[in-house]
Amino acid sequence: MYGIFSYGISTPRVGFKHGNYILDLEVVSLLGYFDDLAINPVVFAQPALNDFIALGKPAHRAIRQRLNELLDNDASAFAGVHNQVFIHESRTQMHLPVRIGDYTDFYAGIHHAENVGRMFRPTSDPLLPNYKHLPVAYHGRASSIVVSGTPIRRPNSQFLQAGKPVFGPSQALDFELELGLIIGKSNPLGESISVDEAEDYIFGITLFNDWSARDIQRWEYQPLGPFLGKNFASSLSAWVLPFDELEPFRVAGPIQEPTPLPYLQTTGKKHFTLELEVWLQPAGGDEICIARSNSRYLYWNFAQMIAHHTVGGCNLNIGDVLATGTISGSTPGSYGSLLELSWNGERPLYLSEAISRTFLADGDTITLRGWGFLNGVRVDLGDVTGTIHS
Amino acid sequence: MYGIFSYGISTPRVGFKHGNYILDLEVVSLLGYFDDLAINPVVFAQPALNDFIALGKPAHRAIRQRLNELLDNDASAFAGVHNQVFIHESRTQMHLPVRIGDYTDFYAGIHHAENVGRMFRPTSDPLLPNYKHLPVAYHGRASSIVVSGTPIRRPNSQFLQAGKPVFGPSQALDFELELGLIIGKSNPLGESISVDEAEDYIFGITLFNDWSARDIQRWEYQPLGPFLGKNFASSLSAWVLPFDELEPFRVAGPIQEPTPLPYLQTTGKKHFTLELEVWLQPAGGDEICIARSNSRYLYWNFAQMIAHHTVGGCNLNIGDVLATGTISGSTPGSYGSLLELSWNGERPLYLSEAISRTFLADGDTITLRGWGFLNGVRVDLGDVTGTIHS
Repeated sequence: MYGIFSYGISTPRVGFKHGNYILDLEVVSLLGYFDDLAINPVVFAQPALNDFIALGKPAHRAIRQRLNELLDNDASAFAGVHNQVFIHESRTQMHLPVRIGDYTDFYAGIHHAENVGRMFRPTSDPLLPNYKHLPVAYHGRASSIVVSGTPIRRPNSQFLQAGKPVFGPSQALDFELELGLIIGKSNPLGESISVDEAEDYIFGITLFNDWSARDIQRWEYQPLGPFLGKNFASSLSAWVLPFDELEPFRVAGPIQEPTPLPYLQTTGKKHFTLELEVWLQPAGGDEICIARSNSRYLYWNFAQMIAHHTVGGCNLNIGDVLATGTISGSTPGSYGSLLELSWNGERPLYLSEAISRTFLADGDTITLRGWGFLNGVRVDLGDVTGTIHS
Repeated sequence: MYGIFSYGISTPRVGFKHGNYILDLEVVSLLGYFDDLAINPVVFAQPALNDFIALGKPAHRAIRQRLNELLDNDASAFAGVHNQVFIHESRTQMHLPVRIGDYTDFYAGIHHAENVGRMFRPTSDPLLPNYKHLPVAYHGRASSIVVSGTPIRRPNSQFLQAGKPVFGPSQALDFELELGLIIGKSNPLGESISVDEAEDYIFGITLFNDWSARDIQRWEYQPLGPFLGKNFASSLSAWVLPFDELEPFRVAGPIQEPTPLPYLQTTGKKHFTLELEVWLQPAGGDEICIARSNSRYLYWNFAQMIAHHTVGGCNLNIGDVLATGTISGSTPGSYGSLLELSWNGERPLYLSEAISRTFLADGDTITLRGWGFLNGVRVDLGDVTGTIHS
């Protein structure tokens, strides 16, 4: 996994995660280990991965291959320079891994969409008529995306109380368990990306927490969608897993019925099985796993999201974030938000005999974790954590 | 007005519009005319206004004052260097004036909101319950904002035809008459901007056309708002009018009843009277004015938009665009979209005996124009134009 880190008085630079150490790729590059790869070392000395991403997949594969070789045999290739190239993560500070131009949030978790429909439109079909025809999405706020570990301030705004709008801190603060795609290639404005070439436009994958203030969102969102209910903060993991590393975890997705229009039709295994977990730690308490889900529960796959996003000509840029929407499974223990876990606050979630939650309390820390594990191969995603404060 | 222009083989740089000429501020600065103002000339040699904007209002006022002095008396101060500092606009190419981090679109035109409500929810109150309590807004796509003059490609996507989703070019392509605020100062994430200080965060104002594909939007927008119906393109004027220049046009806004919550309460004249026009020119035909509106028809003022946007802690950055939403008056001749002018296609708008429109045809050019004119003072906004192609 790649990320942006600094330590001591260093400037932010590109790092590669290796156990509890970060390999300083600026130093590795300056020491000449990439010399024959014809890679400009400047891309490793940047405060964001964008220039590194722009090198393209052949270069990323060459670098990855070289890193595999260098890290073999107890990394003896680095004999004499170990202290320069390996920085223990306890000494480092992580930064937002990409400079994000635009951020889009999909709604591709069908169980989440159904649960929300059941709660808020109990007398009609839980899914709206468009849901199985197109990957519903909206544009989110890019400026307030923060790196994992950044404290999250409970937002103020308007919400209804006893039928009247009041102003104050949200009383229904929630997390959302999502994956974030990091775009790896740009398309020109006016030109679409076909569903068959769409995966080529993904640099990598992250965990993503789309913090949500349900009371604010409910009052504001008609008719144009979420605004202050979402734009106070979203948390992105510090580490981006290159898309190639997901190959061992390909699976078939759900049968899509009705069949989507041709521009959304995919064949083969375009879903991925990644285990996802949500952990909640109250202030001073123990961390407890409150949900276990899996990315295969998404209805729409990544290629369909990108094809739909661009079919009208919208241009994606390197570093853009496309999040999946909340990934819930079909059973209560797999729900990816407190909205669902507490069924809109009606059924408190007990963390212990004494402690329960409907929505998040100040001091609560939410950590999302994820990994692939199939046929003996295991790959970890970078986790995302954030603590609520008033 | 300030903008970014290039000519011949020059790099893009900051220009000041003076009649049909553009004053090359990079050259003016290098020639020493700003030497005593302690302004780094590099800010004028950039491909976006962001660094110039970051100088702050005192610097902008000093520069404006100096420009007024230099341009007095037939600009004799420039004797001997006229050809270097004045570039005729016919020789120039205009660029997007700012590097846009995020783009937000409000819905502050109350007559537009009422008209849309009457069309799509004919049996209920045209305004949704939240409308007069908060300035409704959503996040738009920043990457597809283009400078005035850029051709606009008719987007493909899904829409309903005879009740079934079909794929193809939009059959209901529309414009939206809006103003765009260019943010002039950043606030840190987690800190709000009070309604009283909000106007200090506006660098300037532009005309803005939020092109909309009504058929695509109608099918996709539930429950999370517009996506492909808007993100194929939005057009921003090439010229940004500094906010100070709007001072002569301050007027009181509408009485806001119910009284907004305290964080949205403003006193004094916080609205502006700016005449706004929409012109449509069919391919090979004459340009015809199809709507005349005024910015005073907005329900919410600029200060309220900024205060609401940030009250939950969302951070604005220099160069962000906050658009007002469609500005319609109360009478049909003042409607700021074809959706309203043709009443959702039910009443074609006749441009001549032979030519009518419900929505835009390929080859149509839409131009938005605007100006303030009060007590003998006139100030023009930069216009916005765009031609539709397939």
